[in-house]
Amino acid sequence: MFRVLNQENIKDILDLRSVISIVEKAYTLKEKNEASLFPMVFHEFDPGKADMDIKSGELSGANIFGLKLVSWFGENPEKGLPAVIGTVLVLDSRTGEPLGIMSGEYITMMRTGAAGGIGAKYLARKDSEELLLVGSGHLGPYQIMSTLMVMENIKRINVYNARSYDSAKKFCDLVKDKLLQLIAPYKNQDQEFYNQLLQRINIPISATNDIEQATKSADIIITATPSRQPIIKKEWVKPGTHFSCVGADMQGKQEIEEQIFAISRVFVDDVNQAISVGETEIPYIKEIINTDEIISEIGSVILGQTVGRLNDEDITIFDSTGISLQDLLTANFILEEAKERQIGIVTTL
Amino acid sequence: MFRVLNQENIKDILDLRSVISIVEKAYTLKEKNEASLFPMVFHEFDPGKADMDIKSGELSGANIFGLKLVSWFGENPEKGLPAVIGTVLVLDSRTGEPLGIMSGEYITMMRTGAAGGIGAKYLARKDSEELLLVGSGHLGPYQIMSTLMVMENIKRINVYNARSYDSAKKFCDLVKDKLLQLIAPYKNQDQEFYNQLLQRINIPISATNDIEQATKSADIIITATPSRQPIIKKEWVKPGTHFSCVGADMQGKQEIEEQIFAISRVFVDDVNQAISVGETEIPYIKEIINTDEIISEIGSVILGQTVGRLNDEDITIFDSTGISLQDLLTANFILEEAKERQIGIVTTL
Repeated sequence: MFRVLNQENIKDILDLRSVISIVEKAYTLKEKNEASLFPMVFHEFDPGKADMDIKSGELSGANIFGLKLVSWFGENPEKGLPAVIGTVLVLDSRTGEPLGIMSGEYITMMRTGAAGGIGAKYLARKDSEELLLVGSGHLGPYQIMSTLMVMENIKRINVYNARSYDSAKKFCDLVKDKLLQLIAPYKNQDQEFYNQLLQRINIPISATNDIEQATKSADIIITATPSRQPIIKKEWVKPGTHFSCVGADMQGKQEIEEQIFAISRVFVDDVNQAISVGETEIPYIKEIINTDEIISEIGSVILGQTVGRLNDEDITIFDSTGISLQDLLTANFILEEAKERQIGIVTTL
Repeated sequence: MFRVLNQENIKDILDLRSVISIVEKAYTLKEKNEASLFPMVFHEFDPGKADMDIKSGELSGANIFGLKLVSWFGENPEKGLPAVIGTVLVLDSRTGEPLGIMSGEYITMMRTGAAGGIGAKYLARKDSEELLLVGSGHLGPYQIMSTLMVMENIKRINVYNARSYDSAKKFCDLVKDKLLQLIAPYKNQDQEFYNQLLQRINIPISATNDIEQATKSADIIITATPSRQPIIKKEWVKPGTHFSCVGADMQGKQEIEEQIFAISRVFVDDVNQAISVGETEIPYIKEIINTDEIISEIGSVILGQTVGRLNDEDITIFDSTGISLQDLLTANFILEEAKERQIGIVTTL
């Protein structure tokens, strides 16, 4: 049986706490060699205007394999269509049977949000109080919410947009509603958790136009931009800072100065992908860091095989390039829930 | 709108004459740089027991892109499942929107049959009378039918199976029914064509266990096996023979002796794929042929830009590795027909 789910079905099913634990599981399966990535396929239809990639992989530890195809057509919004469209196909790794297909956009937001939070959970100081979010786009609310779920002491959040202070302000005006939506699934399901989160999202979330000062006072910095120029300078970074860099997913993208890698403990989701298309790419090309100097993939930290942060002075980086295993395991969770709840279209291929 | 089609829907829609013309178009779009292949992804779950590949590409000339994922699980038949399962996903190359998904098995058989026939149509002697089919598996009837559709003078067909003469005999006993099924779409649609084909499939189709003699008397040889050992020897090949080699699609596969490449005019569907995984791979590795010595891709011959056969003495080879463009353009034809005829499930993703 083959199941087809649309964006609405997925939003009905998926909650961020589950996705955080699913993404952790994806990372650990990879570490245990019960999951692996296949080579990425990338094609530019029209350089700078339209491209697509196919990220695929297998999680034999979860009996699935499959792919996510994501396309970006910059001129789509003029046609009333989303610029980014994603599709996830999941198959059974014991038989090759296709299990289901679904929209990939919401999954991508959720699993990327989870990744940023997981970076903080395993690498940031437990007493971290101030989060700096660099970038005020669609990914922002997911990054904030997952960090608030996993870091108990966050007391204030600054939001910076390198291109437009107004955009950051607008983001802060609207973000509470988005956060409320993200915690809505717990309202009936887990009242206590819901009330906790309701308090946590009540902290100040403010736009800043002083990135130097905001960096200097931040405990956790999450970068979620499509930038090709470093936004954060090394000289601003205080000891003990944690970075979750989730924006870079393509050659040439860079959000923080490459020299920060020289003074940091660096963790990645996938070494090959990190040095090819992640935040680690530029420092790797400039020989500031080699693969031996990457401490480990994050799965090893989650499993307790590698120590993340050694002390409160360490600067840590989690380079989350976004791996297919996150999407596939999340999609499989959705398929299982959909089966349970009889959601979506069921057919044969 | 996203359309989901199953194997039955596809069989209702697809006919071999259409597929031949679609596959020709796919080849010519590639030649005109209105279509291109993306790198292939290949993964072995369990070497020799289970693998999968993802072949993708774009046909901007037809406004589509997409992929075919094919898995092979050798132990599936014991579970009552087909060993080979394929899925084709088609998207709009102007917007990235997914257009539809469908089963890939029947498409693969049809487009591979078309490819073998197209090789003969453009490269074999027009007066070819005898076809030798090497291999008596699922692909066989499609190879025979497409060759009969495009070569008017075929008078007899020999079928050889290197492992089992009985299998070849059984194949010949059953093939007429399969051919009748393949021409059934024309019964109402094009009575004249149907009657022509009905006559053509009435020629003798016989099993042989003398591959030397069968090779010596053949005008056209189609190899459609998963062999890793050459079956046809160079010394048996008579001047004027045409080969369509459709079996090799993976490293190490080989159906005809590599030295045959030294005395032949060689054409391929895609140069890179041919030297990596096609029949051309072994002669290429053994330096019997280099890429400059491949006369052209077949699209160039179809467009009349390259002469296929220079004279009646030439030995010609078409190495059909099977390219995603064949699947995608065929799948797009199916989607258009399905829309017209309101077949399949229509939904949004």
